[in-house]
Amino acid sequence: MTKKVVTLGEIMLRLSTPGYQRFIQAQSFDVTYGGGEANVAVSLANYGLDAYFVTKLPDNPIGLAALNHLRRYGVKTDYIVRGGDRLGIYFLETGASQRPSKVVYDRAGSAISSAKPEEFDWDKIFDGAAWFHFTGITPALSDEATEVTKAAAKAAKKHGVKVSCDLNYRKKLWSPEKANKVMTELMEYVDIAIGNEEDAEKAFGIKAAESDITTGQLSEEGYKQVAKQLVEKFGFEKVAITLRESYSASDNGWSALLYDGSEYYRSRKYNVRIVDRVGGGDSFAGGLIYSLLNGYDYQRAVEFAVAASCLKHTIPGDFNMVTVDEVNTLVEGDASGRVQR
Amino acid sequence: MTKKVVTLGEIMLRLSTPGYQRFIQAQSFDVTYGGGEANVAVSLANYGLDAYFVTKLPDNPIGLAALNHLRRYGVKTDYIVRGGDRLGIYFLETGASQRPSKVVYDRAGSAISSAKPEEFDWDKIFDGAAWFHFTGITPALSDEATEVTKAAAKAAKKHGVKVSCDLNYRKKLWSPEKANKVMTELMEYVDIAIGNEEDAEKAFGIKAAESDITTGQLSEEGYKQVAKQLVEKFGFEKVAITLRESYSASDNGWSALLYDGSEYYRSRKYNVRIVDRVGGGDSFAGGLIYSLLNGYDYQRAVEFAVAASCLKHTIPGDFNMVTVDEVNTLVEGDASGRVQR
Amino acid sequence: MTKKVVTLGEIMLRLSTPGYQRFIQAQSFDVTYGGGEANVAVSLANYGLDAYFVTKLPDNPIGLAALNHLRRYGVKTDYIVRGGDRLGIYFLETGASQRPSKVVYDRAGSAISSAKPEEFDWDKIFDGAAWFHFTGITPALSDEATEVTKAAAKAAKKHGVKVSCDLNYRKKLWSPEKANKVMTELMEYVDIAIGNEEDAEKAFGIKAAESDITTGQLSEEGYKQVAKQLVEKFGFEKVAITLRESYSASDNGWSALLYDGSEYYRSRKYNVRIVDRVGGGDSFAGGLIYSLLNGYDYQRAVEFAVAASCLKHTIPGDFNMVTVDEVNTLVEGDASGRVQR
Amino acid sequence: MTKKVVTLGEIMLRLSTPGYQRFIQAQSFDVTYGGGEANVAVSLANYGLDAYFVTKLPDNPIGLAALNHLRRYGVKTDYIVRGGDRLGIYFLETGASQRPSKVVYDRAGSAISSAKPEEFDWDKIFDGAAWFHFTGITPALSDEATEVTKAAAKAAKKHGVKVSCDLNYRKKLWSPEKANKVMTELMEYVDIAIGNEEDAEKAFGIKAAESDITTGQLSEEGYKQVAKQLVEKFGFEKVAITLRESYSASDNGWSALLYDGSEYYRSRKYNVRIVDRVGGGDSFAGGLIYSLLNGYDYQRAVEFAVAASCLKHTIPGDFNMVTVDEVNTLVEGDASGRVQR
Amino acid sequence: MTKKVVTLGEIMLRLSTPGYQRFIQAQSFDVTYGGGEANVAVSLANYGLDAYFVTKLPDNPIGLAALNHLRRYGVKTDYIVRGGDRLGIYFLETGASQRPSKVVYDRAGSAISSAKPEEFDWDKIFDGAAWFHFTGITPALSDEATEVTKAAAKAAKKHGVKVSCDLNYRKKLWSPEKANKVMTELMEYVDIAIGNEEDAEKAFGIKAAESDITTGQLSEEGYKQVAKQLVEKFGFEKVAITLRESYSASDNGWSALLYDGSEYYRSRKYNVRIVDRVGGGDSFAGGLIYSLLNGYDYQRAVEFAVAASCLKHTIPGDFNMVTVDEVNTLVEGDASGRVQR
Amino acid sequence: MTKKVVTLGEIMLRLSTPGYQRFIQAQSFDVTYGGGEANVAVSLANYGLDAYFVTKLPDNPIGLAALNHLRRYGVKTDYIVRGGDRLGIYFLETGASQRPSKVVYDRAGSAISSAKPEEFDWDKIFDGAAWFHFTGITPALSDEATEVTKAAAKAAKKHGVKVSCDLNYRKKLWSPEKANKVMTELMEYVDIAIGNEEDAEKAFGIKAAESDITTGQLSEEGYKQVAKQLVEKFGFEKVAITLRESYSASDNGWSALLYDGSEYYRSRKYNVRIVDRVGGGDSFAGGLIYSLLNGYDYQRAVEFAVAASCLKHTIPGDFNMVTVDEVNTLVEGDASGRVQR
Repeated sequence: MTKKVVTLGEIMLRLSTPGYQRFIQAQSFDVTYGGGEANVAVSLANYGLDAYFVTKLPDNPIGLAALNHLRRYGVKTDYIVRGGDRLGIYFLETGASQRPSKVVYDRAGSAISSAKPEEFDWDKIFDGAAWFHFTGITPALSDEATEVTKAAAKAAKKHGVKVSCDLNYRKKLWSPEKANKVMTELMEYVDIAIGNEEDAEKAFGIKAAESDITTGQLSEEGYKQVAKQLVEKFGFEKVAITLRESYSASDNGWSALLYDGSEYYRSRKYNVRIVDRVGGGDSFAGGLIYSLLNGYDYQRAVEFAVAASCLKHTIPGDFNMVTVDEVNTLVEGDASGRVQR
Repeated sequence: MTKKVVTLGEIMLRLSTPGYQRFIQAQSFDVTYGGGEANVAVSLANYGLDAYFVTKLPDNPIGLAALNHLRRYGVKTDYIVRGGDRLGIYFLETGASQRPSKVVYDRAGSAISSAKPEEFDWDKIFDGAAWFHFTGITPALSDEATEVTKAAAKAAKKHGVKVSCDLNYRKKLWSPEKANKVMTELMEYVDIAIGNEEDAEKAFGIKAAESDITTGQLSEEGYKQVAKQLVEKFGFEKVAITLRESYSASDNGWSALLYDGSEYYRSRKYNVRIVDRVGGGDSFAGGLIYSLLNGYDYQRAVEFAVAASCLKHTIPGDFNMVTVDEVNTLVEGDASGRVQR
Repeated sequence: MTKKVVTLGEIMLRLSTPGYQRFIQAQSFDVTYGGGEANVAVSLANYGLDAYFVTKLPDNPIGLAALNHLRRYGVKTDYIVRGGDRLGIYFLETGASQRPSKVVYDRAGSAISSAKPEEFDWDKIFDGAAWFHFTGITPALSDEATEVTKAAAKAAKKHGVKVSCDLNYRKKLWSPEKANKVMTELMEYVDIAIGNEEDAEKAFGIKAAESDITTGQLSEEGYKQVAKQLVEKFGFEKVAITLRESYSASDNGWSALLYDGSEYYRSRKYNVRIVDRVGGGDSFAGGLIYSLLNGYDYQRAVEFAVAASCLKHTIPGDFNMVTVDEVNTLVEGDASGRVQR
Repeated sequence: MTKKVVTLGEIMLRLSTPGYQRFIQAQSFDVTYGGGEANVAVSLANYGLDAYFVTKLPDNPIGLAALNHLRRYGVKTDYIVRGGDRLGIYFLETGASQRPSKVVYDRAGSAISSAKPEEFDWDKIFDGAAWFHFTGITPALSDEATEVTKAAAKAAKKHGVKVSCDLNYRKKLWSPEKANKVMTELMEYVDIAIGNEEDAEKAFGIKAAESDITTGQLSEEGYKQVAKQLVEKFGFEKVAITLRESYSASDNGWSALLYDGSEYYRSRKYNVRIVDRVGGGDSFAGGLIYSLLNGYDYQRAVEFAVAASCLKHTIPGDFNMVTVDEVNTLVEGDASGRVQR
Repeated sequence: MTKKVVTLGEIMLRLSTPGYQRFIQAQSFDVTYGGGEANVAVSLANYGLDAYFVTKLPDNPIGLAALNHLRRYGVKTDYIVRGGDRLGIYFLETGASQRPSKVVYDRAGSAISSAKPEEFDWDKIFDGAAWFHFTGITPALSDEATEVTKAAAKAAKKHGVKVSCDLNYRKKLWSPEKANKVMTELMEYVDIAIGNEEDAEKAFGIKAAESDITTGQLSEEGYKQVAKQLVEKFGFEKVAITLRESYSASDNGWSALLYDGSEYYRSRKYNVRIVDRVGGGDSFAGGLIYSLLNGYDYQRAVEFAVAASCLKHTIPGDFNMVTVDEVNTLVEGDASGRVQR
Repeated sequence: MTKKVVTLGEIMLRLSTPGYQRFIQAQSFDVTYGGGEANVAVSLANYGLDAYFVTKLPDNPIGLAALNHLRRYGVKTDYIVRGGDRLGIYFLETGASQRPSKVVYDRAGSAISSAKPEEFDWDKIFDGAAWFHFTGITPALSDEATEVTKAAAKAAKKHGVKVSCDLNYRKKLWSPEKANKVMTELMEYVDIAIGNEEDAEKAFGIKAAESDITTGQLSEEGYKQVAKQLVEKFGFEKVAITLRESYSASDNGWSALLYDGSEYYRSRKYNVRIVDRVGGGDSFAGGLIYSLLNGYDYQRAVEFAVAASCLKHTIPGDFNMVTVDEVNTLVEGDASGRVQR
């Protein structure tokens, strides 16, 4: 039977300049929709799971377009509530070489940020679910959204659902102090935590020694310490950390580390020529949830997740449009990019 | 010497679907910028006046892009204040035949709607100005924006500047009651009022007899009465009313009426095949301000304004990109559309 | 409870030249997906019904893209079988004025044309269904497809489902003789027949007197006779005939006639400026099914169906992206196309 | 055996704004190539003749692109000389409704305008040719181009080739006085003259009575007189005059008149919804040459030429991409624009 | 005198997603036309030879567009037969980094695959020809196409034409067994064989030792053995082998080996940043044929061919749009990519 | 107070093929405007200076579009003269990997090339100016343009304005002999000279030892000698030399050298993945002028200039759209290209 997975969060209208244009040059924007948890849901739908995305969308054509975008890729939208004022937006300018990509958020007052816990039927949502995933973005949106996230996490636990959280610290949304307070409360419901090289530091003050993200230098040892401290502090079942080496906006090193409280599972590293870096972390989360849900051994699980997100970096838009077979081809070592006829 | 004209209001990011697509079909949006008063400023800059647009724009690349868009067409941006949270947005789906165009506004919380009167140096703004134009949209945005509008109108009067107002009732922004109260206060500063077939009714309860805007039937006599009542009620020097006969989203009849308190000046009517109807009214206001500022006789003034806005309907985007010569060619009777080599 | 409706047929990849280009000019094609019965399913999904589209799609990314396109607009794809060799294609060159639109079909060997009745679980498909719709296109695709259509119609009848058929004669697919033979057999399952000005003549030799489709001249009386003869010959519960007056590729008159065996219900006529004429008839069928399923009186039913398809002509692509409210606004007389803000 | 036809003139790079944009809005231009005589050559190649276009093109990639564009549509480019400084350019802004299309020429110094008669092998060019066509544009380009045109016309006559000329007066290129002088000399080689409602007046001072081209009013009687005077003055075998009624940039009436020195043959009139008006006259010339070369009776000839050019108005670009069958379908009365499947 | 070269095969409609989109994301496809032997013909036409492409194309506008595409780039289309059902299609999704490009073929039932030998006038085709080129794709299309290929090869030999064959094994078209049988028969007509790192193995079971194409590791020694065995087995005059090192879909190493039965000529290796990899092998064949036909010494010949195909990888579409001068600049060592003004 | 800077030169219409297409493939061109000195003006306007660009533009919509393009990015256009025949054009084909970008100039007869010194009000132009910049392109355009450049340089000196010149040798415009003569005369007004690896050699015969620009090999020592000789010969206050290592059209090394007559300041080197290489040198000049005008120490000045132009290589179009903050972020060492949220 197909497994039911639930993700909760915000999906935004994404407006990106075509072909490396800067914002002030553009006379058209490419239109797609995305957001951390929605991106995870799409990954899971592509892998064949019953992926439900829970959010609130405005009852206008822009909200419907976002819903349709999820539906198009097979995400279940049955639990999406319609109402509120507007869809959050983010503007994206794709960088290259030494010029960074730039995101301008325009998400204040979005429908999900003003939603209330009682607008959702949590029992129905988690009935029969195998996994619940959220990120540190949703509780950061607003006090209402914090409450919605808590209600969801609590209900998931009540229904015996495995819970994962991508820490995803966003400095534009809240301060480290506020993040620390809210996230610490939420961590009690979390079984698997996922973070990148910045999140643990910003949200919980847990810093990797000897790493400098602006030079792309990463200390593997330092990140093992971060994972260990997270497990010790919050009692997570597992912690996964993605390791991005930013050589430039065009080329990144990409790998990850999974820690199960006793062993460290270090993935292969991919050097990626970047088409679209946004959603990279989400595609890792999607790959990890899929592989853990399917009982992959841990080394394989982290390899699957990293390979999946390696491929995401080559696909325009937030969503990772890859199949299990495509990921496995890469896991099994064919990174040659040879034409498939 | 070039005449200085000031307009005040909101400029928004306009996102429109290409080629008659519905919102839920679009994978890209055409990007431009527009808004009632900004549109008037562009018309005037094209006619060779020193047109200043006053607003507040967020200090991010999207705000800069809006500012650049004005600058590109020669509008003076010296008095624009930078700050606030976001640029207002409107989404546009262009209709055809029996399917209406659809506008979805997303303008809450825009920079100008939270601006304060003291952020602007009114004395500098109106120093040496010949004309000030605003619309009924700006005061409707928020209480702050009402105050900004009042401050501007008051300062304009203090500097002896001629004031025009396009009534422009927007039902999504306020109720008729609120509009009536605020607009009545503002009308004391206004010399020339401009309205379309709905505005006087919605903002002041002054209705044209025997007209039905959904069938495209207009009573000329009724509109003369509306103009007369407006003059009687508010003591305007002049009232101009645009008369749109909406045969369909693709074809409109377009003409206008100017009343100077004693005589009625009725323009020729153009049957227009529509390329982009948005900004039609603003281009009329632009044409009227130009022709009155240049001392055209009143019949010529209304003919110029109607011909200018007739041409606007054939140009994509909010702005009317026409020269005085092009308008005059049409006023003088060449509506043949013959290729100019 | 939401009503379940089933349609069966072929969805094709549609490749159309942009901006009135001829095929030999194009350096890109606009990509969408469509086909008679799929188009009806999308209409019904937009109206809020549980619309299931049944077909067979190749198990490759092109097939998945077609499936996604249905999913995007809310059509249920649960009963779609994956397999076969290829997705049918049609190329479209959009005409204008005196130049007709041109369709080049490339549908031979498509997955659905080689499907077999036993690949579908008819009992599950029609369980709880309220309506089944098919067209004269599907049985014309191949002998296999004829069998699939028959199996479906028979199963629908067995489950007590109301059956409608759009006659839709396609001369490239079969001869009048073959059509007559096959369609006559299928008509025994049909309750409501829908045709345009050519279908009855081509499929059954029933011709409207005094009409000439190439001059756009239609005889209302003649079409009443056609409807009557169809009822007499096949015992249909109802017959609907769409009446297209082709003034040119850019402008058409559009109306319809519904006959219930005793009374004729003649709709209003719309003069439409055409954006995309393909799928016009299908949107009529969608509107008719919806209104009959909802118990509209017959005059209202035919008005709803004609207004719905009038709007379709203004939307690019095969699908009719309109809501019940939008159709009703037009039915109630607002054809003014005024901007909706 | 396929007939050989030669045309001589300038082909230019055409840069047009997309979607009714004005020049000052465009961030991209649509690229095609065209010019009066090249357009005629393409028409003739489409009809199956051996159409040779003679010109001089710069030996750079832009020149090659122009040559390729001709080759693509089957025009023979064997006699094209490569060299000179640049390819002439014209910028096109497509008008709509009351806004005229605008052409900005940038053709000074083009390769053909500085070509010399001795660069071409006239005997080879006209060997076996059945028809030679030129226009009043080429001799107007420069004194060198005048000489090239004369050399060609003279050589054509020497080889017993039928010669046609589209008078095509261009006021940006020369004065009426210069035109009169040069064209009068060239007319001695011409058998069939083609003109529109302006040409005879501007080039030879022969004016149609009671016509006003800016109001779209045409006097049929007046144009008969023009044709008659042209025959009397220059001894042409035939004169054809196209009659454009410019209701607006979007809608034109289109018909023509052929005079053989004794009878007038008046064509049907088409009301055309315009997609691209440029090349309209050239497509008439192409249709006329084809039908006269094939011995059509004169009424049929003028009907063919007008129908051909009616269709051209619906096709983007300078070239008329229609087949003999498509033209004949329209000549035989099917102007319904019904979809051809 | 210009040399006449003949190639025979299939040209397909190529539909590719823009900008690294996956198939399921695309809302438009870029349109071009290509196929192994047609690509070679274009290369040769660009180098100034009289390149004839022989195929069968459907007599509809899509077939004409393919023919026009060849004509545009100077390929002679005189021997192309029109008829049959459809044009073959291939869908292309361009990969990047670790994500491979993906080709979906839809070529069954294409016009050339059902052509018969007697539809072509072989004597006329090979009269005066200097070279005939075909590939292993054409005989694989169908039994009819095998016969056509044999007839062509036999006729070429009869006319004393040099024959080259690109082995080009396509696993979707036939099995190694069938390939072996058919290709072995055809090899008797072949003078120069061209293959890549897979072809000899798949078609003839001749494998390079110690190479693994999925890791990009190539054994030069192994490929020398392959070349040698091919010469020994089939008596070829020469064998050329292209050596692709697939570091990723974005970066490849590219070089080649030519063997004349006694000496090995190893080319320089280029590290290519890939724009469009399709047609890479064909451009090598084109370069080799050109340089051998022009009597280049063998080292120079293989350098020319490799440099030509290196450049092809930087050009979108199947065709290699380079001149002899451009190739020579690279052969002579300027790989700096400095702007040419 | 904002500093006033003046640049003088030609702005051209830039027509570039999209997506690495070759000229002969393109069916549209991307449209922007640029030219050496205009590019510098835009850089300076972006950095917040009052940047005036002086030129002559044709009084047609294409000229206005160029002017608007400058205005859009904040360049002051008050001193631009309107008139003359045409706007210069350059066509750009963007290369990749081993294929060089290609520029086809079509600038003969442009408005600025036929301008006369007395058309400009030099005293007004240089009143209050702090800096004047020109390049070796403008005097090369024509004898008239030489005179205009001299008049400007002389007037600048008279007003005590600092003068910089980018040597910018263009071989299509003049011979080394002519360049040497004219440039030598102009150098007497110049304080700061800027050159790349070719300019000093071509204009003044001063060659760097042991460098070969086609292999990308540069001798730092050699360039120091070039700088020294330039100072010795012309008495410049400073000389700056940009050092481009062209690994390929896709990847360049980029750095620079500043010499103040006694010390050499060598910048960091960036390895750049190129989006658009045109305007690279101009963005260096812009950065250098800004940093010298602001009193940066010389090491910092050359670092700022190189970082600014490094970023330019990642931005489509001629203009460098970066802020002082963005440049400084790179100068301070963050070249990681990490997404900025």
